Amino acid sequence: MSSITVKQAAKRLLESDNAYILIHRSPDGDCIGSGYALAMALRSLGKRARVLCSDEIPSRYHFMLPETQTLEYFEPEIIISSDVADEKLFGGSLSEQYAGKVDLCIDHHISNSGYAKELCLDGKAAAACQVVYEILQEMKVAVTKEMAVCLYTGIATDTGCFMYDNTGARTLHIVAEIMEQHPDIDYARINREMFVVKSMGRMQLDKILTEQLESHLDGKCMLVCITKELMDKYGIEESELEGVSGFPLQVEGAQVSIVLKEREKGVFRVSMRSADWVNVSAICQNFGGGGHVKAAGCCIEGTAEEVKKQLVEAVRKGMQKS
Amino acid sequence: MSSITVKQAAKRLLESDNAYILIHRSPDGDCIGSGYALAMALRSLGKRARVLCSDEIPSRYHFMLPETQTLEYFEPEIIISSDVADEKLFGGSLSEQYAGKVDLCIDHHISNSGYAKELCLDGKAAAACQVVYEILQEMKVAVTKEMAVCLYTGIATDTGCFMYDNTGARTLHIVAEIMEQHPDIDYARINREMFVVKSMGRMQLDKILTEQLESHLDGKCMLVCITKELMDKYGIEESELEGVSGFPLQVEGAQVSIVLKEREKGVFRVSMRSADWVNVSAICQNFGGGGHVKAAGCCIEGTAEEVKKQLVEAVRKGMQKS
Repeated sequence: MSSITVKQAAKRLLESDNAYILIHRSPDGDCIGSGYALAMALRSLGKRARVLCSDEIPSRYHFMLPETQTLEYFEPEIIISSDVADEKLFGGSLSEQYAGKVDLCIDHHISNSGYAKELCLDGKAAAACQVVYEILQEMKVAVTKEMAVCLYTGIATDTGCFMYDNTGARTLHIVAEIMEQHPDIDYARINREMFVVKSMGRMQLDKILTEQLESHLDGKCMLVCITKELMDKYGIEESELEGVSGFPLQVEGAQVSIVLKEREKGVFRVSMRSADWVNVSAICQNFGGGGHVKAAGCCIEGTAEEVKKQLVEAVRKGMQKS
Repeated sequence: MSSITVKQAAKRLLESDNAYILIHRSPDGDCIGSGYALAMALRSLGKRARVLCSDEIPSRYHFMLPETQTLEYFEPEIIISSDVADEKLFGGSLSEQYAGKVDLCIDHHISNSGYAKELCLDGKAAAACQVVYEILQEMKVAVTKEMAVCLYTGIATDTGCFMYDNTGARTLHIVAEIMEQHPDIDYARINREMFVVKSMGRMQLDKILTEQLESHLDGKCMLVCITKELMDKYGIEESELEGVSGFPLQVEGAQVSIVLKEREKGVFRVSMRSADWVNVSAICQNFGGGGHVKAAGCCIEGTAEEVKKQLVEAVRKGMQKS
């Protein structure tokens, strides 16, 4: 693996034709946006390009897809990946098929495993879309409205609408440049769809989670325990529980949030989040887990009451150390 | 009243000393941010400046206030207002005391009533803080960390964390410039406090509102009716109901949201919001109300069931016209 600059990546792309662009399984706004923006850019230069994903693109992201897609088969000359930190994350048959075969990886995850022959990585970029934008500038590609929608959505979704600490000055300058070139895009509508709108099912789930909220350590540790019994009672599906890990952290005064999901009777998957200064990765390591300083997890066995007691005690100790 | 440019406003401020800066009653992030940033800027130039507000600054905005405040009395040489569209909005005794006496108004509301001798208005600016930033640049004031916190928070709160359609390219370039000058500010923490954190009371209220959600017109019109009975049952205070007007609009598929609040028995205050293309101001005009295209209101008398029926019927007709 060799690390290359944005300029070198642009040169490599300009010299190549017939590109396959791989994005990660469970596709999100950033891999879809960066993958399709790059594909459209390459096509605008007369090249052939196709985006490959092991999962279907969820309907909430369909507005990002180009109106016309090349369906004719072609043999790839260059295999690119975008926003994929490791080749295992292609998922399904793509992981096996393209293992060791990626020529160029465009990414922003500092944890990138270096699986590609050439890696264009900007660990300070908020999103892969930010890196792709820089590459397009270097390639002197005119950013069309369709590309702008992709790039904007990818950056907005990876930053929580510019809310998280990965939002940098360069991120905002780029978004401003996109807006200058395309003032006619309804950015507020995209934001509404991505950040405000919830299904009735999700609203009901939030209601149930609010009912289950437990306050520990004088409200500094907020906890929700989702038992099998609770899921059965309300007919909650496993898949619906994605994105609830941060739920208890929105309560005023919460420093640490814990979400317990009972995988099977007496086995709990634990998601821990920190609002600020508490290192939850260190806390989860006590239970054989780990992760990032502000977002970590582990697995514990026991009754709900036992597990809660152990976790809250570990958080209490962790707060003293942090 | 004469309209003046940012450059002229900067010149006027540089020539003046001993400034009173008036902000509006029920102070929000933008008037606090713009008022205090300007006061700090004037003080950094060796001038005296004081911010006046008829209400207390709410505790959630206390982090924006400068550590040291001038408390000595001085006679004002120039009366400035920031983010105040009309002098009635000073509130309390300030409205009477300063009616017709404001020398310079800095604002971004196109509805500004032109009450000041000189008006520096940028109707395209997302926030008064954006206009103040431009004035500070023109005055060649170094933006300190304390000023940056004020300006950032004002812009972020007035744009819903850059989510609303008032967020322009210039807005984002300015925020990026602030971040470049002050990379050490914890912007993500400010965002969390302003946009994520909720009191337990507000979480409980959201739960109750979810339970009360009614779907009309195939889910295109979502409605919540908060009767006196409901408020008594759960002990909900009138003041807690601020900011719930958009609640039903977060439901997937909703085009129009209606929130009914029973003021006294059989008298309902109606808040209507539009997600997109439906003109709710026109709908509310049928009931003697009005407002903006996407946010309007009116007052109706009757039983809850009668009022709902009339409103939903008006929305149905309004959707056909829009």
